[in-house]
Amino acid sequence: MITELPPTPRTVEELAAHVGGMVIGDKDRQITRCNGLTSAGTADISFLSNHKYAAHLNTTRAGCVVVGKDTVYMQRNDGWEPALIQTEDPYYSFRQILVLLHGFRAHPQIGISPLAVVAKSARIGERVNIHPFAVIGENVEIGDNTNIYPHVAIMADVRIGRDCIMYPSSVVYDQCVLGDRVILQAGAVVGCDGYGFATHQGIHNKIPQIGNVVLGDDVEVGSNTVIERAAMESTLIRAGTKLGNSVVIGHNCRIGEHNLLVSQVGIAGSASTGHHVVLAGQVGVAGHLHIGDMVRAAAQSGIAQDIAPNKDIGGTPSMDLKHARRVYMHFMQLPDLVKRLREVESELADLKNKSQP
Amino acid sequence: MITELPPTPRTVEELAAHVGGMVIGDKDRQITRCNGLTSAGTADISFLSNHKYAAHLNTTRAGCVVVGKDTVYMQRNDGWEPALIQTEDPYYSFRQILVLLHGFRAHPQIGISPLAVVAKSARIGERVNIHPFAVIGENVEIGDNTNIYPHVAIMADVRIGRDCIMYPSSVVYDQCVLGDRVILQAGAVVGCDGYGFATHQGIHNKIPQIGNVVLGDDVEVGSNTVIERAAMESTLIRAGTKLGNSVVIGHNCRIGEHNLLVSQVGIAGSASTGHHVVLAGQVGVAGHLHIGDMVRAAAQSGIAQDIAPNKDIGGTPSMDLKHARRVYMHFMQLPDLVKRLREVESELADLKNKSQP
Amino acid sequence: MITELPPTPRTVEELAAHVGGMVIGDKDRQITRCNGLTSAGTADISFLSNHKYAAHLNTTRAGCVVVGKDTVYMQRNDGWEPALIQTEDPYYSFRQILVLLHGFRAHPQIGISPLAVVAKSARIGERVNIHPFAVIGENVEIGDNTNIYPHVAIMADVRIGRDCIMYPSSVVYDQCVLGDRVILQAGAVVGCDGYGFATHQGIHNKIPQIGNVVLGDDVEVGSNTVIERAAMESTLIRAGTKLGNSVVIGHNCRIGEHNLLVSQVGIAGSASTGHHVVLAGQVGVAGHLHIGDMVRAAAQSGIAQDIAPNKDIGGTPSMDLKHARRVYMHFMQLPDLVKRLREVESELADLKNKSQP
Repeated sequence: MITELPPTPRTVEELAAHVGGMVIGDKDRQITRCNGLTSAGTADISFLSNHKYAAHLNTTRAGCVVVGKDTVYMQRNDGWEPALIQTEDPYYSFRQILVLLHGFRAHPQIGISPLAVVAKSARIGERVNIHPFAVIGENVEIGDNTNIYPHVAIMADVRIGRDCIMYPSSVVYDQCVLGDRVILQAGAVVGCDGYGFATHQGIHNKIPQIGNVVLGDDVEVGSNTVIERAAMESTLIRAGTKLGNSVVIGHNCRIGEHNLLVSQVGIAGSASTGHHVVLAGQVGVAGHLHIGDMVRAAAQSGIAQDIAPNKDIGGTPSMDLKHARRVYMHFMQLPDLVKRLREVESELADLKNKSQP
Repeated sequence: MITELPPTPRTVEELAAHVGGMVIGDKDRQITRCNGLTSAGTADISFLSNHKYAAHLNTTRAGCVVVGKDTVYMQRNDGWEPALIQTEDPYYSFRQILVLLHGFRAHPQIGISPLAVVAKSARIGERVNIHPFAVIGENVEIGDNTNIYPHVAIMADVRIGRDCIMYPSSVVYDQCVLGDRVILQAGAVVGCDGYGFATHQGIHNKIPQIGNVVLGDDVEVGSNTVIERAAMESTLIRAGTKLGNSVVIGHNCRIGEHNLLVSQVGIAGSASTGHHVVLAGQVGVAGHLHIGDMVRAAAQSGIAQDIAPNKDIGGTPSMDLKHARRVYMHFMQLPDLVKRLREVESELADLKNKSQP
Repeated sequence: MITELPPTPRTVEELAAHVGGMVIGDKDRQITRCNGLTSAGTADISFLSNHKYAAHLNTTRAGCVVVGKDTVYMQRNDGWEPALIQTEDPYYSFRQILVLLHGFRAHPQIGISPLAVVAKSARIGERVNIHPFAVIGENVEIGDNTNIYPHVAIMADVRIGRDCIMYPSSVVYDQCVLGDRVILQAGAVVGCDGYGFATHQGIHNKIPQIGNVVLGDDVEVGSNTVIERAAMESTLIRAGTKLGNSVVIGHNCRIGEHNLLVSQVGIAGSASTGHHVVLAGQVGVAGHLHIGDMVRAAAQSGIAQDIAPNKDIGGTPSMDLKHARRVYMHFMQLPDLVKRLREVESELADLKNKSQP
């Protein structure tokens, strides 16, 4: 087991204190583990934040459940009463308890494997783990405590901060810069050539992509996600932004702070986003446009123009979300609308006939 | 050549017997190879199951063609008559003949390469091939006859069944479980961290993903497809399910048996499917919903609510497929519908004018 | 630095001569570097080809700007006058200057690393670079000057031309054929098994995929893009075609010359395209259809039928682009159209009431 030791048990009271929550029920119960509502046993703690699952609160065998401020369960007659920990933000509180009980993946402390290739000119920080078959290029800098898993390729002149994790087969092309606590999931590609061609007399001539990619602190890049290097200057992903899996970010994009770009989102070249933008799964964004701060786009939206800040949008082409919902409701009723139009036409023809002398 | 030996020739009669088919024409002809209808030569066998290609039956130079029960070709005047093998299910019969004549890729029998890294604590079955630069972590179990290609990373505590194939650069994160005869195509990622963040005061706090992924027997995972590990418990892909390329399966999904999830499908977290579900290319599925047994969704569908069993659906948002076809037909005629509405409005205004005293 | 030497400075006049352009302004200015309009300094050259950025021409600090034949800037009062180089095709001209000043990525000339595995039966050309941990299978042929980066796997019987670049973790399955000057970005997969299953009695039986993939000269394959091998015969990508990132090409597709298939495009099996086809981001193409020469499809289009040559198309299902624009305009106005229909119905009811005796 990577996580060698089982979690240390904690009482409900200790866990409540850890998240500033209020206990209802048995505060002395011992909790050893986090688990889902339907699978949890009496020594497990679970949570309820999605109302869809509220009914499980009356049947769960969990020893303890983290819930919202006003949430209680109905009288239970099955002889089991989960303790409740009520907090403002049960999802976040449960996350704090997960971190306390289980922590994050423990990375093998192997130092620099003799089976890795590390260029002599590379500068490697303290307590860095570099796994077998990783390749670290010329002049690369890697900060303290960073983990480089097998089959990672870091090309020349890359700068990587401290406490980063690069999972197997992730690739960073030359001259890219990664902040601190950056995570690349397996197969992520940072800094490949931008899709830049000058078409001349029917030939697509490749344009040298002389820029790079800069990832801010705390950026996470999902598995097999691709971030193109800039044609010139830098493709930017600012601090705190999390990319899902198989996302594609085109060259020269400037993605703001604390964005959530969910799996399979695609953003074409030179687009930019403000802070706290959320793009749900499979959203597409055209090139050279700007999405304002705090914009949230529903799954599969097609965004082809600038979006003002704070908008919730949806649909293809993307529209104000409330409007989009009305549009799609009518869209699904088109056969009925056409029938009504046909009836109107027919009645109108009747009326015209009658009104003729 | 990996496949060192050319296929052993078989007569049309032998092949027909192999698939329980009826021969029309020259049963003694020698067949050495499978090939497409338009490329096949007189020693090749081909098949016809898609009516789109029916005309080729009258021009093919194939020595033999596997066809449906009632299929024959028109009188040919070009001096060539392909033998026919008629069966109930010509596509499946042709597949049986392909397996007989050509077989599957022959994997190099190299044993455990001295250039692979295999943890001492790993338990490796009989006749396992582990290629150079593969990495097998602590406590990993690998069943008999499994093939591990170069640059595969198997992290700690993974259990892999027998007769599996893991192609280059596929990655399995710690604690995941793979059944027997599982195939990971190149770059597939099993068990990376789920996209789980608790947003608190504007910061997206990573939630430890302490669950795993469980793949049933005979699951195939396409190239660069990503299956996230569960936040807690397991993301499940049940037996016999085949995932295309660049598919993304979110954390805690439970995918049923014998599903076909075609390339670029995306399924958000905690969604589930019944058995024999088919999702065509680029379909998107929202989180926390259930798709019933035998549901089939057309390409690019956007599924945002539970789907009852046995439904054929299409469109965004997904609708009953027949309804969707009518909706999209009218959708494409919207300019005409608007014109008709305008005419109605204008005629109505005329009538009202006339009817005024 | 990979590119060890800074670019050699050139005068505006030299650069103009290189691209056959006409100079307006200071022809003796020394230019050392290419840069974007808003970042460029007085020794930098930039370009303007997208009218969206025209205003920057009046504020840029660039020493020189490549522009179209008729482009000049307004009188500037800020004491700086960029030299202009006017050409027919400023984007292509700027590309030529980029190549002159910066060139393409300089590949480390390392020869064949002793840490790579190269089968004895492989035939490797002159001046080939094979990086540590690359694996070259039996009977592989690699042409002169080709670069094979770390963690590349080339399976048996593959033929690769000269001047190719295979970036880290790209994979080529057995028996595939790559032309000259082919580029595989990181994680690209060429020749994995096609998604072929014969479903029989509820079981999806894998069909051996005995074909291969053939990539023409000058094909570029983006990061994590997947090209399936043919079931039989070959999946073809013809010369000069450029695939973006996370594209999926199904088995037996025949993609024409000089196509641009942008990121996340998905093409189902046995589809084909003519020459100079452009499919923008996230376009989906159904199987067994043909897209004619010079067709251009807007982003996210869903193409489910043959498309005649020279068409510009858009939408789902794909339509003539001009028609699609009208359709989507009305689509977004559906709530208003329904309101108008309701008014017509109501007025008609009034009229009918009145007209009754």
